[in-house]
Amino acid sequence: MSYHPADPESIFTYGAPRLKFGNGASEEIGYDLSLTGARRVLVVTDPGIAATGTPQRVADQMARFGIEALVYDQVHVEPTDASFQHAIDHALAAGPFDASVAVGGGPSIDTAKAINLLTTNPGELMDYVNVPVGQGRAPSKPLHPLVAVPTTTGTGAESTTICVLDVLEQQVKTGISHAALRPTMAVVDPRLTLTQPAGVTASAGMDILCHALESWSARPYTTYERKTPEERVPYCGANPVSDMWSSRAMQLLATSFRRAVHHGDDEQARTDMALASTFAGMGFSNAGVHIPHANAYPIAGRVKDFHPEGYPREEPMVPHGMSVSLTAPEAFRFTFDTNPQRHVEAARMLDPQAEMTDDPADLLPTVLARLMRDIGIPDWLAAVGYDESDVDHLVGGTMKQQRLLAAAPKDVTEDDVAAIFRGSFANW
Amino acid sequence: MSYHPADPESIFTYGAPRLKFGNGASEEIGYDLSLTGARRVLVVTDPGIAATGTPQRVADQMARFGIEALVYDQVHVEPTDASFQHAIDHALAAGPFDASVAVGGGPSIDTAKAINLLTTNPGELMDYVNVPVGQGRAPSKPLHPLVAVPTTTGTGAESTTICVLDVLEQQVKTGISHAALRPTMAVVDPRLTLTQPAGVTASAGMDILCHALESWSARPYTTYERKTPEERVPYCGANPVSDMWSSRAMQLLATSFRRAVHHGDDEQARTDMALASTFAGMGFSNAGVHIPHANAYPIAGRVKDFHPEGYPREEPMVPHGMSVSLTAPEAFRFTFDTNPQRHVEAARMLDPQAEMTDDPADLLPTVLARLMRDIGIPDWLAAVGYDESDVDHLVGGTMKQQRLLAAAPKDVTEDDVAAIFRGSFANW
Repeated sequence: MSYHPADPESIFTYGAPRLKFGNGASEEIGYDLSLTGARRVLVVTDPGIAATGTPQRVADQMARFGIEALVYDQVHVEPTDASFQHAIDHALAAGPFDASVAVGGGPSIDTAKAINLLTTNPGELMDYVNVPVGQGRAPSKPLHPLVAVPTTTGTGAESTTICVLDVLEQQVKTGISHAALRPTMAVVDPRLTLTQPAGVTASAGMDILCHALESWSARPYTTYERKTPEERVPYCGANPVSDMWSSRAMQLLATSFRRAVHHGDDEQARTDMALASTFAGMGFSNAGVHIPHANAYPIAGRVKDFHPEGYPREEPMVPHGMSVSLTAPEAFRFTFDTNPQRHVEAARMLDPQAEMTDDPADLLPTVLARLMRDIGIPDWLAAVGYDESDVDHLVGGTMKQQRLLAAAPKDVTEDDVAAIFRGSFANW
Repeated sequence: MSYHPADPESIFTYGAPRLKFGNGASEEIGYDLSLTGARRVLVVTDPGIAATGTPQRVADQMARFGIEALVYDQVHVEPTDASFQHAIDHALAAGPFDASVAVGGGPSIDTAKAINLLTTNPGELMDYVNVPVGQGRAPSKPLHPLVAVPTTTGTGAESTTICVLDVLEQQVKTGISHAALRPTMAVVDPRLTLTQPAGVTASAGMDILCHALESWSARPYTTYERKTPEERVPYCGANPVSDMWSSRAMQLLATSFRRAVHHGDDEQARTDMALASTFAGMGFSNAGVHIPHANAYPIAGRVKDFHPEGYPREEPMVPHGMSVSLTAPEAFRFTFDTNPQRHVEAARMLDPQAEMTDDPADLLPTVLARLMRDIGIPDWLAAVGYDESDVDHLVGGTMKQQRLLAAAPKDVTEDDVAAIFRGSFANW
């Protein structure tokens, strides 16, 4: 079913952090924070990133500007209410701080958002978590400056207004979502991304690609019923601004993605991937993402025994970007009829040399599958351990992500999702 | 001379106001300001815009949110230190205000920036005016929220970090320039632009075009010597983000500019012009503009007896966008050799059907001249009253704009500028 609103929306919104981009950008954070008047700053990171020395180097810049900086390096790689609370408690005990810097991937940046919220506003974590899991309260007081320094090319968390967490007691993944959570500044230093292993570059890069492609294909803002100002949310549907960021991200991926995976020391490819990640973040943080990201929740959550290249070997995992990518070809075959031209254009941006398929609906899935194979993504759901017996559970997990499915360009039923999963077991 | 820095810059920066775009967007400002906690708001506008009733409609929205709003409608169409001071004195006397809304073109938005600065920070206007005219002091305290509502499609002032003024005693045009001056939010409501006369649409539209084309062709950020963080300025040279905004603005102009001038009731063309204006603003407010804008200062400032269509008839004037456009074709012939491909690409974006000229350097000037003729821009400098006897004075005026000339993609001498003026007397 496509959408024909009686009173179509005419307004879209756009917000973004300030950006400082380029080799060496992370060496100027002390100065940038000094402009905010900050005196005590918390640097938030995870143990793996802390081991690279980058967070401490960021902290060490502060003294020159009379700013005291402490590093909190206990971010959990899969944030939970407990890990957020640990970080918040630490910040409250060691504080007060008047600004923070997140160094790392999505988990570090999201944890810093939660710290920022709960050290500036009254109440408990669950007061602010999205309904129905939490109370969905909006912050009543201004948050502090938050500088986000992504060290992987993928997350986009430096641009988003959300932090994602598992609520352990309820066994559910949810988030806190409010425009005030958006970092005030993104510092993107491509040199920090040079040490990503090929497997991480591939998975995280598929997250960039899906951010761009899902926001490009998301339900257009004009197909919603008109909202009151009170009803507006940061994710407002595909619009001329998000389209611009998303399409440019896809063009950057076309020339840099394979090179960055196979020649990790190619600084131009790394820089273009960092740009693509930033651009895709600027786009999807305003337009939204849909089916592949919704499917990723149960794919990552129900992992059995898969241990991907380039990631820590201790625990089984399907990395976020990989889990997003595995059903993307079939998801975009499903959405093709909502806007054939847009799907063909996306395929052409991602691979200008691709030959047209007999059925135009095959073009984008074909381009995606070829790329995934070339960069070493496993051969879809079967390769990460799923089979037909998992479909019902996977579908159930996807259907819980109604906030994401609502951004799809047409209604998505359980049968639709089941067909997408069944089409995604193996490809090549 | 082109630029070969010994230690090239590797970093660019990007900042922008939050954006709310679309028909009806200006009806939600009361709600948007209520989120900032504002209780008393000053609406800043000029007498002409005030007569349309829009500023009062914006003020009237505030009561529903418990916000008191006053309208100041005495903005001068060519702001001076005296007109800024009048506005600041009014705001201080009627205040305190904790937010402001600028409704109008560049003068209203720039005046609101000056009010915002001088009602939140200590000292006098001249303390903050750019050196050598003023002291160039940076604000020491945070400014208040400022919502900019452009009513013409051209200014870009909703995105910029500068306010322009004539300092009367010194007979010089200068500005106040600081990142803190950038409006916090731009509200772009295309319906407010429907009543622009054709002549205003044409002139203001040439301002959009030159914003896009000058930032697209500006000296790239990588051709500067490396800056310290303290040395960075908002206008950092052409970069991947400004290129994206500028090129998309040119593509929008290609399909909407002639239609908006000749069919002012075409809502799609008006919407696309409003988008183009916003996009060009997002671009040039980070990259900078150069020769055509530098030349515009003396062209507008030394006007003799020209009275353009669509503008008030009392005083002679060369409207800003017109004054920017009149030397643009020759300026881009002069800069062609710095990057032939970029100049050809720009011509192709502005007119995809244009046939290649015998000399590729002619293509962009030809495309621009044809557009200017089609939309009723006068036949260049002669048509607005200038002749050979004015060249020395015009060149002198341009050479004072070193801040702008520094953004050109090559060195610009007095002889270069004189040749551009001499080539711009008449065309068709």
